[in-house]
Amino acid sequence: MNREALIAAVKEQMPERRWLHTLGVMETSVMLAERFGGDAEKADLAAILHDYCKYWPVQEQAKIIRENGLPQDLLDYDKELWHSHAGAFIAHSQFGIDDEEVLDAIRYHTSGRENMTLLDKIVCLADYMEPGRDFPGVDNIRELAKTSLEQALIAGFDSTISFLLAKGKRIYPLTVLTRNDLLQQLQS
Amino acid sequence: MNREALIAAVKEQMPERRWLHTLGVMETSVMLAERFGGDAEKADLAAILHDYCKYWPVQEQAKIIRENGLPQDLLDYDKELWHSHAGAFIAHSQFGIDDEEVLDAIRYHTSGRENMTLLDKIVCLADYMEPGRDFPGVDNIRELAKTSLEQALIAGFDSTISFLLAKGKRIYPLTVLTRNDLLQQLQS
Repeated sequence: MNREALIAAVKEQMPERRWLHTLGVMETSVMLAERFGGDAEKADLAAILHDYCKYWPVQEQAKIIRENGLPQDLLDYDKELWHSHAGAFIAHSQFGIDDEEVLDAIRYHTSGRENMTLLDKIVCLADYMEPGRDFPGVDNIRELAKTSLEQALIAGFDSTISFLLAKGKRIYPLTVLTRNDLLQQLQS
Repeated sequence: MNREALIAAVKEQMPERRWLHTLGVMETSVMLAERFGGDAEKADLAAILHDYCKYWPVQEQAKIIRENGLPQDLLDYDKELWHSHAGAFIAHSQFGIDDEEVLDAIRYHTSGRENMTLLDKIVCLADYMEPGRDFPGVDNIRELAKTSLEQALIAGFDSTISFLLAKGKRIYPLTVLTRNDLLQQLQS
C-alpha cells in the first residue's frame, strides 16, 4: 500500500481532530528526525500509523492484546496504553509492515521503554509536543527538544506521571523505568 | 535487651533532631495501631528501630546490602532507601529480633511494598506524618489518616514521587508498585 492509500486508511479510523493530531505528529517526527539524525522516512511511517487503533472500541483493543500474546499486564493499566500495542500489531498484520524499528516506535509511543531507539524517542516525543498539543509544560518540552531528545522526553514523562498522581490513577511501571533509564543516559 | 536499653542504643546512632523524629514515629505508630486495630507493641518496637542505620556512613549501609544478600537493585537507587533494609538486618543480627512482621515494617518503611501488612502501613505512614514533619501536603496526609491508612499512604507516596520528579531523580519502581497496589486495595 502506498503512502497516500495508507493515509486515507488511517484518516477513516478517527475523528477529524485526531487526524489533525496525527498530521502534527508526522510533521514533528520528520522535523525531529532531521534535527537528531534519525530516519525521516521511518519516522513518517510510524507517525502515520501510531494512533491507528486509538478510537477503536476498547474491547476490540483488549481483544487484540489478549489473543495475540501482547503484554497482558497492559490490561491491568490505563486504557490509553492499549492502542499503541494494538496499533503495532495491526500495522504488521493488516498493512504488512515488517520493519521492527517502525513497529517498535508505534508499540512504545505511549509508555516508552528502557533502551529506547532513536526512532522510539522521536515518535514518542513528537506525540507529546506536536503543534496541536496544549497542556501545562508543553512549551518547556518544545524548548528542551531544541537540544536534547532525552531531556524533552523526561519532561514529557514527568507531565504524564504528575497527571496520574493528580488524578489518583495508577502509573504503568514501564513508564517509570523508561524515565529512570533516560535520566541514566544523561548521566553517562 | 529491654526497651530502655534499646532506646539508649538507638539514640546513640543519630543526631538529636533525628532522635526527636524517632520519638515522633514511636508515638504516631502506637496511635495509628490503636486507631486501626494494629499491634501497638510491635508498632512501637519497629518505630524505635526504623532509623537505626540512617546516619551510618552510606558505604557501611551499602556494604551490609552487598554482603548479606539484600536486594541489590537498591544500590542503583537513592541512598535514602538503604537504611531501611540495613536497619532490618541489624535489628535481627545485632538485637536478635526475629519477629518477621517487625523486621518487615522496618525493611519497607521507606519504599513500601505490594501487599503491605497492617504493621508495614502503620510504621510507613507514621514516618510520613509524625508531628515533627513539615513538608507540602503533610497536613492533608494527617487528615486522611483519621479515616484511611491507604488514602493517607497514597498521599505520602504521591509527595515522594512529586519530589523526585521535581528534583530530576530516579523513582524506585517498588514505590510505584506500592502506590498502584494501594489504589487497587481502595477499589476492591
